[in-house]
Amino acid sequence: MKVAILGGDGFCGWPTTLHLSDAGHEVHILDNLSRRWIDTELGVQSLTPMDSIQERCRIWRETTGRTIHFHLLDLADEYERLKSWLSEHRPDAIVHLAEQRAAPYSMKTDRHKVYTVRNNTNATHNLLAAMVETGIDAHLVHLGTMGVYGYSSVGAPIPEGYLDVEIDTPSGKKAQEILYPTRPGSVYHMTKSLDQILFQFYAQNDGLRITDLHQGIVWGTNTDQTLRDPQLVNRFDYDGDYGTVLNRFLIQAAIGYPLTVHGSGGQTRAFIHIRDSVRCIELALGDAPKSGDRVKIFNQMTETHRVRDLAEMIAGQTGARVAYLPNPRKEAAENDLIVRNDQFLALGLEPTTLAEGLMSEVVDVARKFAHRIDRTRVPAVSGWTRELGAKVDRDPEGKSLRSAS
Amino acid sequence: MKVAILGGDGFCGWPTTLHLSDAGHEVHILDNLSRRWIDTELGVQSLTPMDSIQERCRIWRETTGRTIHFHLLDLADEYERLKSWLSEHRPDAIVHLAEQRAAPYSMKTDRHKVYTVRNNTNATHNLLAAMVETGIDAHLVHLGTMGVYGYSSVGAPIPEGYLDVEIDTPSGKKAQEILYPTRPGSVYHMTKSLDQILFQFYAQNDGLRITDLHQGIVWGTNTDQTLRDPQLVNRFDYDGDYGTVLNRFLIQAAIGYPLTVHGSGGQTRAFIHIRDSVRCIELALGDAPKSGDRVKIFNQMTETHRVRDLAEMIAGQTGARVAYLPNPRKEAAENDLIVRNDQFLALGLEPTTLAEGLMSEVVDVARKFAHRIDRTRVPAVSGWTRELGAKVDRDPEGKSLRSAS
Repeated sequence: MKVAILGGDGFCGWPTTLHLSDAGHEVHILDNLSRRWIDTELGVQSLTPMDSIQERCRIWRETTGRTIHFHLLDLADEYERLKSWLSEHRPDAIVHLAEQRAAPYSMKTDRHKVYTVRNNTNATHNLLAAMVETGIDAHLVHLGTMGVYGYSSVGAPIPEGYLDVEIDTPSGKKAQEILYPTRPGSVYHMTKSLDQILFQFYAQNDGLRITDLHQGIVWGTNTDQTLRDPQLVNRFDYDGDYGTVLNRFLIQAAIGYPLTVHGSGGQTRAFIHIRDSVRCIELALGDAPKSGDRVKIFNQMTETHRVRDLAEMIAGQTGARVAYLPNPRKEAAENDLIVRNDQFLALGLEPTTLAEGLMSEVVDVARKFAHRIDRTRVPAVSGWTRELGAKVDRDPEGKSLRSAS
Repeated sequence: MKVAILGGDGFCGWPTTLHLSDAGHEVHILDNLSRRWIDTELGVQSLTPMDSIQERCRIWRETTGRTIHFHLLDLADEYERLKSWLSEHRPDAIVHLAEQRAAPYSMKTDRHKVYTVRNNTNATHNLLAAMVETGIDAHLVHLGTMGVYGYSSVGAPIPEGYLDVEIDTPSGKKAQEILYPTRPGSVYHMTKSLDQILFQFYAQNDGLRITDLHQGIVWGTNTDQTLRDPQLVNRFDYDGDYGTVLNRFLIQAAIGYPLTVHGSGGQTRAFIHIRDSVRCIELALGDAPKSGDRVKIFNQMTETHRVRDLAEMIAGQTGARVAYLPNPRKEAAENDLIVRNDQFLALGLEPTTLAEGLMSEVVDVARKFAHRIDRTRVPAVSGWTRELGAKVDRDPEGKSLRSAS
């Protein structure tokens, strides 16, 4: 089938693109390359040396004989071009990964908050309006986040998107199924909560077929496809804004930097390997809802861990020390997290576990490219409020962070 | 106190401005005058002859000696100017009415959908981000809509914003209070559902003090203040996009046009007179939440009626006939609606009822300005989907709507 991958140049987008191309689909990347611009803004770069998108597509064609089409397009700002593109190419499916995806970046300054809401909300809504207007019957698969649920558990496992509740009425208790009450913890997460409302409306009013994937924290770097050539390597972020917690621990261990745990480390989070993330997107594509159905929601995660347990595990395997630092985020210090992911397991997902995948990441990625690391970019400094940001004033080695940057 | 009224040139904004100025507050209007531009776009005008905002402010000063400050500013597009303005003027309260407010307009074409989401969401979020960044401690009062609740009643009265539910957990049933599950019926209503999530986040993360008013359909034209001079008159919209149902019936009756009921007229809606709307905003301003409180939500309505009952009542009083037309909206044909509004009643609101206010509207407004009506602008033609729009092909007098415009 013909698949448009919006944000196909990003961390999840690139391996998804290769995976679907490898499976024989006609793949089109639509991307404004904003993630590369943000690298420039922040003065950071992927740990892994990353070629231009045009060059990556060329290498893939040389290696496999398969073509990936690249279209430079800004989803949030170029509504008319988006509509023309959809109208001309009429894809069978659209994978929407074109949102600013880092919570710390979204909380960095007011400019970053404004950018994140403007980019993410307008991108998603432009896409929905253009799908209706062009009358294409594409299945939309969107990457959401586990963060829409919030992390103050009600003491029951988190269901896949919808919650059964009972309401008091004059004629007795009445059972009802509702969208899980959202409680996002950052501006980034909030945009995914907004997306849910957009999806609900367009599925109901226009019969759009939509799947929303509530993804956990992604770890790992490569998939079978990105390993086919060194120049196909996926990006790997280790900086305080874009690096996800587990990848940051791995890199910190590789360069003898303390593993930075913010707060008590009692935060429990859901995780998934990039290999499984890509596979889940493929499974979701093959399991489309019908027009008129409600939005189909999957929890896209495979295991949950407490942050401090992860740090201690990696410390144990590598000899790194763990540094407990002030938490720049406004969040519960400790939480439990039990998540249902029955749907993907039923569709045949076989998870890559942390236990089996971890050391290959340390050896094949983190140590291999350790010479490219800029230690000054490792601390996480974006505060959720001005007061919380001010508490993070020293790096784990004791150096002031205020004079730097 | 110093109050900023965002959207102070609009239908609710202008009488709110006068009411608060009359009460002795220092009032600043911030408005991009978009509603006047939309009049131009649609080729419609207020039934009542409406002067420029500058002229209206001048008349008010001549009449009362009080000054209303006007600032031309686009909330959605001029973030930096908004921030500078807040930082310089540091208002004690902000009344946010600066959103595109017509459901039919929001569904007119894809361009109108995109505009409505872009304008409303960016406006609200820019305001929240700027309030945090400037560190002002203003109470934000926002005009929302009853439409966020949706109209498929669960059989219990609609509470004020929050719903008590019970959830099954492994250790038994657990009671929880949640934001009422939203089910907006148009792109316009959807933007108010998005606003709710923005408010929840900023109240929680930054301690902003926020009140959200879930308003019913406003009817009526004038308040004590707008009656002080003919040039202070409020706007009155009767066209198919901006005219609200009851005001449209009044105008139709005044010019001998059939009262247009779309569908069975079994839709039950909540109503409030503009006089009470303005008074509610004042009451809400005087009842601010504390920093750290959740968003305070009021239902701002005073009575509920079935649309066909309203039509029959006005037909009975005026001799007009009722025309039942295809419904261009996607909505339940019939619904019950019982709404709680205890909070405003407790604060002393004394509602203007339909029974007492209706005939003065017909005589003092509708008949008085009937010569200004363009009959071709009366039909409601914006369809919720292309199919629904196509069904509305004749006006109630039998003339084709397709050849017109």
